[in-house]
Amino acid sequence: MVSQIKSFLFLFIVIVLSKTVISARKPSKSQLKPCKNFVLYYHDIMFGVDDVQNATSAAVTNPPGLGNFKFGKLVIFDDPVTIDKNYQSEPVARAQGFYFYDMKNDYNAWFSYTLVFNSTQHKGTLNIMGADLMMEKTRDLSVVGGTGDFFMSRGIVTFETDTFEGAKYFRVKMDIKLYDCY
Amino acid sequence: MVSQIKSFLFLFIVIVLSKTVISARKPSKSQLKPCKNFVLYYHDIMFGVDDVQNATSAAVTNPPGLGNFKFGKLVIFDDPVTIDKNYQSEPVARAQGFYFYDMKNDYNAWFSYTLVFNSTQHKGTLNIMGADLMMEKTRDLSVVGGTGDFFMSRGIVTFETDTFEGAKYFRVKMDIKLYDCY
Amino acid sequence: MVSQIKSFLFLFIVIVLSKTVISARKPSKSQLKPCKNFVLYYHDIMFGVDDVQNATSAAVTNPPGLGNFKFGKLVIFDDPVTIDKNYQSEPVARAQGFYFYDMKNDYNAWFSYTLVFNSTQHKGTLNIMGADLMMEKTRDLSVVGGTGDFFMSRGIVTFETDTFEGAKYFRVKMDIKLYDCY
Repeated sequence: MVSQIKSFLFLFIVIVLSKTVISARKPSKSQLKPCKNFVLYYHDIMFGVDDVQNATSAAVTNPPGLGNFKFGKLVIFDDPVTIDKNYQSEPVARAQGFYFYDMKNDYNAWFSYTLVFNSTQHKGTLNIMGADLMMEKTRDLSVVGGTGDFFMSRGIVTFETDTFEGAKYFRVKMDIKLYDCY
Repeated sequence: MVSQIKSFLFLFIVIVLSKTVISARKPSKSQLKPCKNFVLYYHDIMFGVDDVQNATSAAVTNPPGLGNFKFGKLVIFDDPVTIDKNYQSEPVARAQGFYFYDMKNDYNAWFSYTLVFNSTQHKGTLNIMGADLMMEKTRDLSVVGGTGDFFMSRGIVTFETDTFEGAKYFRVKMDIKLYDCY
Repeated sequence: MVSQIKSFLFLFIVIVLSKTVISARKPSKSQLKPCKNFVLYYHDIMFGVDDVQNATSAAVTNPPGLGNFKFGKLVIFDDPVTIDKNYQSEPVARAQGFYFYDMKNDYNAWFSYTLVFNSTQHKGTLNIMGADLMMEKTRDLSVVGGTGDFFMSRGIVTFETDTFEGAKYFRVKMDIKLYDCY
């Protein structure tokens, strides 16, 4: 009997210690699966002069002349975000924030913004920032915080340019992957 | 005696395993209590032309004309933060950063800033960003990082407009709730 | 024999419980060691008029006149980052983002930017924001997120001004300490 207890105890120690080690170690990148994952489309409809009705973003600075790729053009936006590619679909969120161009020998941008959800499905915000390396097919920005349904979330947003129609309109596919969910 | 050990061992296993499961699961939103929670008042005193002495913030862009609610007006600030509503009280922190207006058919803003604490009570910073949905009575922004006494902090700041006196002055009650403390 | 088991069991309980408590408690600040730590130099080479070739940053707003320390001057940059003090060394990363001056009676700044790594050693980004309290010898900003090799990273960047050559060039030593690594 006593020897049974001893062997049981030994097995138990091994199990508990292995669990302890696992819980102390962070999972590797390849092991991590998002706890939430969804795709949204961001539509930037630039203000010209006579299109107040349609426009949802506007430049607030003039490029100072460092190269020919709009370096220093700062754009503030309150853009619609939809689940399909049609910018006139009912928005599921607004993207509020800004971007600017920041490269002198190619197009390249930098974003900081909030996704504001206010529907029956989702209420809350996701706060996002990062470089938009436009020469890459896809590029990753950081989800650095969230509120409401996205309380304290963190993760990655993968940008992919879906269309670019001159200076008036572009659309970005945003693949949102959250790894911290509460 | 041996049977006493067995029953004790069984109880012990149950306790240890239940603890292990609890520590591996993230707490639900309703279970979470802030590890730090305090209320501060933010005072924005806008620069006009002849008030350098009092002013602590200044617009650096002109709204480009997208609607009538200052869309695109960007303000940079080094504003006093106090524990009461009097902007002339001894500040407990400075709020350094910027906001801009970003909606064409109502007032709405977006903030990114640092609370800089440099007193006997607190030394360090909190970094904050998010949408300031001014039509809501309260709205949540993200604390995305901290330094010094607030090393690696994360959490939520709930904004509530306390007063709005035209273009010269407004005061926001900031309810700061930190959920990651070290 | 049974008494040996009892004493062994007691010791085991003490060990397991102490481990459980340690893993449930967050480490104190002094206990925390960065999981990654490296020093980089940031070179800001300001655009004048006729130096497009060399310049890597440019002012996009004019200070509105609140004091004499460039309050409200906003600079957008795509600056080289190197491992030594020579700005002409092969960059190991680009720093893409912006800073502005924000104090009326001294020089003080605020930064938000992305370190973009694209070498054989590192691929990925680090997203950083915070106050640059220029009157302090060293000051801490927050690493609020990361992508690629720096997936989900958080930490601290300690700034130290290395040289300041008038309005054309300055160099900052950035000591990067990451505390969340995957």
